[in-house]
Amino acid sequence: METFTPEELILPPCKYEYLDHTADVQLHAWGDSLKEAYEQCGIAMFGYMTELPTVEIKQCSEIEATGHDLESLLFHFLDELLFLFSCDPFLICSKVVITEFVAEGEEMKIKCKCYGEEFTLGKHPQGTEVKAITYSAMQIINEPDNKKFEVYVIIDI
Amino acid sequence: METFTPEELILPPCKYEYLDHTADVQLHAWGDSLKEAYEQCGIAMFGYMTELPTVEIKQCSEIEATGHDLESLLFHFLDELLFLFSCDPFLICSKVVITEFVAEGEEMKIKCKCYGEEFTLGKHPQGTEVKAITYSAMQIINEPDNKKFEVYVIIDI
Repeated sequence: METFTPEELILPPCKYEYLDHTADVQLHAWGDSLKEAYEQCGIAMFGYMTELPTVEIKQCSEIEATGHDLESLLFHFLDELLFLFSCDPFLICSKVVITEFVAEGEEMKIKCKCYGEEFTLGKHPQGTEVKAITYSAMQIINEPDNKKFEVYVIIDI
Repeated sequence: METFTPEELILPPCKYEYLDHTADVQLHAWGDSLKEAYEQCGIAMFGYMTELPTVEIKQCSEIEATGHDLESLLFHFLDELLFLFSCDPFLICSKVVITEFVAEGEEMKIKCKCYGEEFTLGKHPQGTEVKAITYSAMQIINEPDNKKFEVYVIIDI
């Protein structure tokens, strides 16, 4: 160990602060159909907010989303799911089932049943708060011929 | 509580993953001189990596950084500090003292003494890994007339 003068050992006062922490994570989901890939993407988002095995199916809420293309359809679908969690009773879902999936034409549409329960501290570990869905680098792979159905979405956390 | 069919209670398989988590934080530091603001910014970075009160002064390393303007000088200064932590013996610093500070002209230059000790798990709480310094939204306020010396730097974590 080196030797230091008393002066060298004095620490300076703190003249700094930390600002504006931002972060994001990319969700990648897939399925045997585009519909399933969308469902899985919704679950992936809830899975980032808590540990899904702790979530029981006690309630069901229905949501609807529309879009003018596959991207905006996915965006609004996830946004509706996020909205379920954003106001009382703060529903967290372990299962989403799309009952109507119109992914062609001018007016695309999703109807979806969302199964889960009210988020309860103590029962449900707090994961990371999802602040917003984004269009950033969004990618939708919809290739029925190759049986390839995948989505990539970046969410702000 | 609503009632559900056995089928409704079955959870789907997991067909998703989380990719590419990225994050950043903005450091804001100030001082009675630009030199002090740079020193404080260096300490702010180390303060994000661990709790500084746990760091004793046992070693001193000297670094040098150059730049063609104030921004690149700050970037390279922080990058050199980060490099101290990136290879054995992984020096973490609670005090940095700039001994030479040339912040004018074509060839700007910093020489700096970095006081601290080897990072040791158990002794030093693990903060957040700093991955890189960035030029993103970097701001250097150098106003001797107003006695205003501040820097803003975004670091990738």
